[in-house]
Amino acid sequence: MAEAKSGRDIIRGLLDPASIGRRARVEGWVRTRRTGKDFTFLEVNDGSSLANLQVVADASLPGYSEIPHITTGSSVIVSGTIVESQGKGQAVEMQAEVVTAVQTAAPDFPLQKKRHGFEFLREISHLRVRSNTFGAVFRVRNAMFFIVHEYFQKRGFICLQAPVITASDAEGAGEMFRVTTLDSERGSGSPGGGDGAGGGEDFFGRKASLTVSGQLEAEIFAHAFHDVYSFGPTFRAENSNTSRHAAEFWMIEPEMAFCDLAGNRRLAEDFIKTIVAGTLERCGADMAFFDQRIEPGLLDKLDRLLASDFETVTYTEAVAMLEASGENFEYPVGWGLDLQSEHERYLTEKKIGRPTFVIDYPKEIKAFYMRLNDDGRTVAAMDLLVPGVGEIIGGSQREEREDALRARMAEMQIPLDEYWWYLELRKYGSVPHSGFGLGFDRALMYFTGMSNIRDVVPFPRTPGHVEF
Amino acid sequence: MAEAKSGRDIIRGLLDPASIGRRARVEGWVRTRRTGKDFTFLEVNDGSSLANLQVVADASLPGYSEIPHITTGSSVIVSGTIVESQGKGQAVEMQAEVVTAVQTAAPDFPLQKKRHGFEFLREISHLRVRSNTFGAVFRVRNAMFFIVHEYFQKRGFICLQAPVITASDAEGAGEMFRVTTLDSERGSGSPGGGDGAGGGEDFFGRKASLTVSGQLEAEIFAHAFHDVYSFGPTFRAENSNTSRHAAEFWMIEPEMAFCDLAGNRRLAEDFIKTIVAGTLERCGADMAFFDQRIEPGLLDKLDRLLASDFETVTYTEAVAMLEASGENFEYPVGWGLDLQSEHERYLTEKKIGRPTFVIDYPKEIKAFYMRLNDDGRTVAAMDLLVPGVGEIIGGSQREEREDALRARMAEMQIPLDEYWWYLELRKYGSVPHSGFGLGFDRALMYFTGMSNIRDVVPFPRTPGHVEF
Repeated sequence: MAEAKSGRDIIRGLLDPASIGRRARVEGWVRTRRTGKDFTFLEVNDGSSLANLQVVADASLPGYSEIPHITTGSSVIVSGTIVESQGKGQAVEMQAEVVTAVQTAAPDFPLQKKRHGFEFLREISHLRVRSNTFGAVFRVRNAMFFIVHEYFQKRGFICLQAPVITASDAEGAGEMFRVTTLDSERGSGSPGGGDGAGGGEDFFGRKASLTVSGQLEAEIFAHAFHDVYSFGPTFRAENSNTSRHAAEFWMIEPEMAFCDLAGNRRLAEDFIKTIVAGTLERCGADMAFFDQRIEPGLLDKLDRLLASDFETVTYTEAVAMLEASGENFEYPVGWGLDLQSEHERYLTEKKIGRPTFVIDYPKEIKAFYMRLNDDGRTVAAMDLLVPGVGEIIGGSQREEREDALRARMAEMQIPLDEYWWYLELRKYGSVPHSGFGLGFDRALMYFTGMSNIRDVVPFPRTPGHVEF
Repeated sequence: MAEAKSGRDIIRGLLDPASIGRRARVEGWVRTRRTGKDFTFLEVNDGSSLANLQVVADASLPGYSEIPHITTGSSVIVSGTIVESQGKGQAVEMQAEVVTAVQTAAPDFPLQKKRHGFEFLREISHLRVRSNTFGAVFRVRNAMFFIVHEYFQKRGFICLQAPVITASDAEGAGEMFRVTTLDSERGSGSPGGGDGAGGGEDFFGRKASLTVSGQLEAEIFAHAFHDVYSFGPTFRAENSNTSRHAAEFWMIEPEMAFCDLAGNRRLAEDFIKTIVAGTLERCGADMAFFDQRIEPGLLDKLDRLLASDFETVTYTEAVAMLEASGENFEYPVGWGLDLQSEHERYLTEKKIGRPTFVIDYPKEIKAFYMRLNDDGRTVAAMDLLVPGVGEIIGGSQREEREDALRARMAEMQIPLDEYWWYLELRKYGSVPHSGFGLGFDRALMYFTGMSNIRDVVPFPRTPGHVEF
């Protein structure tokens, strides 16, 4: 039984040759065991690193007879001395003095040595985190998560927790989940309470939904704190069973006052590069693993991203490039039509060959809050396209002129009275301001080479799936 | 018009006498204007600090005639030189060279100089962030938020984003919000789509709700990464209109493998003290403001917390203390009954006089996952009580023995088949493990002296309220 928090050593900190000669005590789980005539090898992992600590238990150890019965998956506490490894594959190993099996895993533990398909592992989200790939995924996810916060905090941005439950639903960003305390017509409902006819008023007294974005709230904060960001869960009730869609995902949304589209682009480029560089630095072994096992060439791809100056083209220029390309696109190209993934990838991969901002889209295909350009036809939108994916960031300068915003909302039939507070931001100390959104989970896919969003989210929610 | 991100100075960085002689350019909002015969004073705030930068614009400035018309709330860009202040109340001021009114606020801007009640300010959540109190609240909230992440990251904890949408609902932590894509019986419903009789299957094909806790998912991660934490939004559909209840709030939930209740207590004490000390250090001016204006004695209260060794008593001892107290409590006291707020405050304020862990509660009044003690009657729970509030942290050592867990779940009629994965954690490498939950918003109330949770949450959700 563990006397907790006292003197455990983190395995990641022991794997360096500098640890040789150190006495240590580790707590973790057995990945494999090999028993020979005179000794047993245990590969022990505590989640701190991809690499295991190899533990050597000599048959002469007191109580040795239990050790050959330790199964894969078992929890153990091991004390001993770090020595130079005799075998290959690791610099150091631990010469065990005491091996305690905390609990011996049942022999049907599903993560035996053979490799498993990701599809199978999705069915056991509670165990897949103990595999090499998912250990690496969630260590990188954690590092990237914190680097995002560090990035903004170092630059004086204030983090706001935008509300998850919202009454706004006119943003047009897709279908929304309804939040209610009423029974639904066809749901199982809760047996008690209510009057049997639906249970009275709903909790909020009006329709409430799960948010699709924290942007509008971030705009409020930007008008008080200048530079702010929201980083939290957002939702889409789209019935899309693709490898890139999840119903629940985290969005990074900075918003900056006194900032135009050029400033927005500069921040987005610096941000992406800083996050990539930081992740490579802190998660070197995990990133090398992804490069070897998941996406050969990943590290080159990221190095090229770091070395490139991002390009900027207008939507109008982009359409001209596509029309002149001679490519056979599946979807039509033409001024006024939205760019499809195939178009975005042609531009960033074949035509331009590096990350590219496309700016100044036709107002008809963008949201009501984007700032109308002087041409009266386009808005100050920006999408960042990167090779291998297409769009990774979407942003804009926001319409800060009250009259222009009212006119645009009326044109798009956005109910003005629901957005009274959004309009008031333009009445009391309005400023040019800009921001963007980056889907955290999709960025993680790009950074790790994992090709299914279900494999970078701890417990993914997709149509028909809400287990764990 | 702002050429964004180029050369703005953050006001917080200019307020020190070391800035005297510096040329600077600031962007912000006017808190007050006073126009004299030969000059105008503008108090400019950019959200970086409680203090404004006093700007002095001499009547001899080119274009001066506009400046006396700048209203409270207007957005401005000002360039000039930082000089020693002639007035009192600030060490430095800016001698303006160029003052640009970006947008002149309408004269009915609600935040004029007089102080407003918090109740009124709640109706204008989009503007209250520009007041002294709410500026301070959300700066402290941001600092505390990041200090929490730093605390865990420095210690090697992995952050997981626990799912917001969940199918679990048997934790007994209170009423849950339902998440659905179906129309509700009495709701307004969405006009299009569906077959008019409810619209087919629900999105997830089963009942889904908003999570009340990320603990169970954190337990999964702790069995792979040893030490982990969840920090995200959680929900309660309780129809409670009190100053301490919000429907949506953020919870901090660390979970540690190979950790018993004593280790859990040690972490909780160290955590609370580190967060308080860090907040005081980074937000000195804001915290002094709260001490002066919101809760006289706040800084003393927090200093005492930092200086105290937290006490630990068992529930059984606590009940004996209450029974021997001679106090006239409103609620009854007796072994087996839950402690009420008045009991908790008596213990930590009057009887013991410092923060106190109460441990080993009767199993009947605690959740199914708490570890049964050897007495067979109590579980390894811990509640941290602090003077002035009562309970601030709730935690436990979790039941890691599969048989004991099954028995307890059966006793409490928790459906075993819904928790098959939770049980499997006990079958494959189970370990003693522990964790706790701290409500971020309530902790912020305690740290700032703000007495209503609606005033520490950016956009609070309470019964009948989902504006903004």
